[in-house]
Amino acid sequence: MPHSSSTALFNLGEFGLISRIAAGVRTHESVITGIGDDAAVTALSAGMQLLTSTDMLLEDIHFRLAWHDPYRLGRKSLAVSISDIAAMGGIPRWALLSLAIPSDLPLDFVDDFMRGFLAMASENRVVLIGGDTCSSRAGLIISVTIMGEQLPDRIVRRSGALPDDDIWVTGTLGDAALGLKLVELEVGGVVKSPPFQGEGQGGDGVDFLINRLLDPNPRVAAALTLAETKLVTAMIDVSDGVLADYGHIAEQSGVGGCIFLEDIPLSGDFRRHTAGLPAVPYQLALSGGEDYELCFTSHRSNRKKIIDCMKKCGIEVTRIGIVASLPGVTVVKPDGSKYCVQVEGFNHFT
Amino acid sequence: MPHSSSTALFNLGEFGLISRIAAGVRTHESVITGIGDDAAVTALSAGMQLLTSTDMLLEDIHFRLAWHDPYRLGRKSLAVSISDIAAMGGIPRWALLSLAIPSDLPLDFVDDFMRGFLAMASENRVVLIGGDTCSSRAGLIISVTIMGEQLPDRIVRRSGALPDDDIWVTGTLGDAALGLKLVELEVGGVVKSPPFQGEGQGGDGVDFLINRLLDPNPRVAAALTLAETKLVTAMIDVSDGVLADYGHIAEQSGVGGCIFLEDIPLSGDFRRHTAGLPAVPYQLALSGGEDYELCFTSHRSNRKKIIDCMKKCGIEVTRIGIVASLPGVTVVKPDGSKYCVQVEGFNHFT
Repeated sequence: MPHSSSTALFNLGEFGLISRIAAGVRTHESVITGIGDDAAVTALSAGMQLLTSTDMLLEDIHFRLAWHDPYRLGRKSLAVSISDIAAMGGIPRWALLSLAIPSDLPLDFVDDFMRGFLAMASENRVVLIGGDTCSSRAGLIISVTIMGEQLPDRIVRRSGALPDDDIWVTGTLGDAALGLKLVELEVGGVVKSPPFQGEGQGGDGVDFLINRLLDPNPRVAAALTLAETKLVTAMIDVSDGVLADYGHIAEQSGVGGCIFLEDIPLSGDFRRHTAGLPAVPYQLALSGGEDYELCFTSHRSNRKKIIDCMKKCGIEVTRIGIVASLPGVTVVKPDGSKYCVQVEGFNHFT
Repeated sequence: MPHSSSTALFNLGEFGLISRIAAGVRTHESVITGIGDDAAVTALSAGMQLLTSTDMLLEDIHFRLAWHDPYRLGRKSLAVSISDIAAMGGIPRWALLSLAIPSDLPLDFVDDFMRGFLAMASENRVVLIGGDTCSSRAGLIISVTIMGEQLPDRIVRRSGALPDDDIWVTGTLGDAALGLKLVELEVGGVVKSPPFQGEGQGGDGVDFLINRLLDPNPRVAAALTLAETKLVTAMIDVSDGVLADYGHIAEQSGVGGCIFLEDIPLSGDFRRHTAGLPAVPYQLALSGGEDYELCFTSHRSNRKKIIDCMKKCGIEVTRIGIVASLPGVTVVKPDGSKYCVQVEGFNHFT
C-alpha cells in the first residue's frame, strides 16, 4: 500500500492526535477516568479478579502494510489481545494502545486504523482507556494491553487438563495460515510460484481465507459460555498452531496428548484450495498459527453439554484428541501410525 | 556501546527467554497467576480502584545505547511508568513488559536490562506479571504497562486545581535535561562544542546530573504520603518540563497559573554547570523534561503540613507559584516582568 506523503499527522502533534483518538471512544460506567490523566482509573466488578495481557505487533514482523489495510489492522491489533482474555474465560473490559508512527504514514491511515480498533472494541464492549503515541524511525509499532475480569472460580488456566479429558477446538484450523500463503502470492511476496489450486485471486473462498488472517474474530462468547459451565479443565487460544498451543496446556498440566489427524476441523474453502497437495493441509492446520480459535479440555462425560452450549453460541466445536497421562503430544493417523509434523508454530528468535 | 556478536539469545529462543526472565521475578500474594498463561490474574485490595498506564520507549528516540547502559535502561523503563502511578497517588503493583530485541543484541545486555528492571520493581514492590517478546529489525523497543491501585477518595487527578492554590514541586528541576546535554557532549553526539562550564567529564557533579537522566527515581513515597493527607487538589509527574506539565493541570482544571522564576528549585550541581550562561538554566529547568518529580497544587492553608509531611519522606519540596483563575500559564521574573520560555516540552510529531 503506497503511503501518500502527508504532513497532516505532524501538524496535528502528539496531543492533537491523542484528542482525535479520544474523541472516537465510547466509554462505560466501569471507567472512572479514561484517556488524559497520568493513569486511567477503572473499577472492577464485585468479587472479580483482574486479567491482564499485552501484545506487541511490529511492521514487517507481525504484519505487512502491503497486505494489511489499516481498518483490519486496527481490528486485529485488539482482537489478538481480546483472544487472550477469552482464553482465560474472562470478560474483556479495558484496553491501552501505544502507537509509534513513521513520519510518512498519512493521517488517513491512522484514522482508519483507529476506526477498526474502536469497532473491535465496541463489538466486545471494551473501552480504550489510555496509551502512548510517539514517532517511529523504524516502521509502525503497535502495543496493546488488554484488561478483563472474571470471578475466581470461572477463570480457566492452561494448567488444569487431566488424563483422559477430551481435547476440543472451536471453528476450523489452518485458514489463516493458508490465507497468509495466498496474500504472499497476491502481492508477489515470499511464495513466488503458486503451489495451490484454485483461482488464486478474489472469489472462490480466497476472500474467506485471507479474511481469516487479516480479521480474526476472538471467541469471546464461546469462551465465556464455557467458563460459566465450569466444564472446562484447561483452555488456550490457538495463536501459534494447535500443536504448539495444546503443547503449552500439556506442559503446564503435566500431561501429554494424542491428537487424531482426521478429526482436525478444516473449512470447505481450506480443503478446496489444498486439494491435490496431501502433505500441506495438515501441516498448516496443526502448525500454521493465527487461528485465534479456542483449544480446551473437558472430562469425557461432558461431551453432549459442550456440543449443546457451543451450538447455542453458534460456534462449531470439534473433539480432536485425548489428554494422555505421559508427557509428549503425538498426532495419530487413521491407521494408528504416528504423523510427523514438519512445520513448527511461530517462535521468535529461532 | 559496542554489541559483541552473540547468538546466545537466539539459541535460547522465545520461550527460553521468557523462562529466563520469569526465573528472576519475585512474586506477591496479590498475584494469583503470573507469567506463563494467556493472561495474568491479580486481585485488587478491598475497596480499591485500578490505575493503569503504559509507555513505549524506542531506541534512538527515547534512549540511545551509546549512553544508556542496560542496567539503568531497565530501571528507567519501569521508573517512568511507576512515576505515572505515583502522580495519581496510587500504589504501584504489577507490570507487563514487552521487548522487541534486535538480532545483534547480546544476551548479557538483556540479562543486565532485566536485572535493572527487576531491581526497580523490587524497590517499589512491583511484580512483573507478563509481557511479550519478539525479534526486532528496527532497534530495541520497550513497552511497559504498569498497574496500581488506590482507594477512590485518595486518587489525585490533574483536574482538581483551584484558583489561589499553591503550585509545588518536589526535588530539583532541569538536572536530567542538563545531564542529556552532558552525555551528548561525552559521546560526541548532537552538541559538538561545549556550551557549559565545568570539567565536562566524570566528577564535579557530572555523574549526579547524568544519573538524574539515566536513573530517575519515581517519587512514590512522597506521592502516597500526599495522597493520604488528602491535601492535594491536583498532581502530575514532571516528564515534559514543569511548564508543559503544569500546563496540563491548568488546562484540565480550567484554570491558569503564575510561576515565579526565582523559586524554581535548582540543584547545586546544576547551578555550577550552568554558571555564566544566564539564559540556559531556566530554559532547561522549565522545559527540559525527564525530571520525574511531582508537581501538585494545594490550598495555601496547607503550606506547613505539606512541608512537614515531605520532610518525613526526606523529599525536598518547593512552592513555585500560584494557580490563577484565568487561563494561561505565565512565568514571572523577580522584577514582576514576564519571562519568555523558548524551549518547549518534548512533543512527538512536531
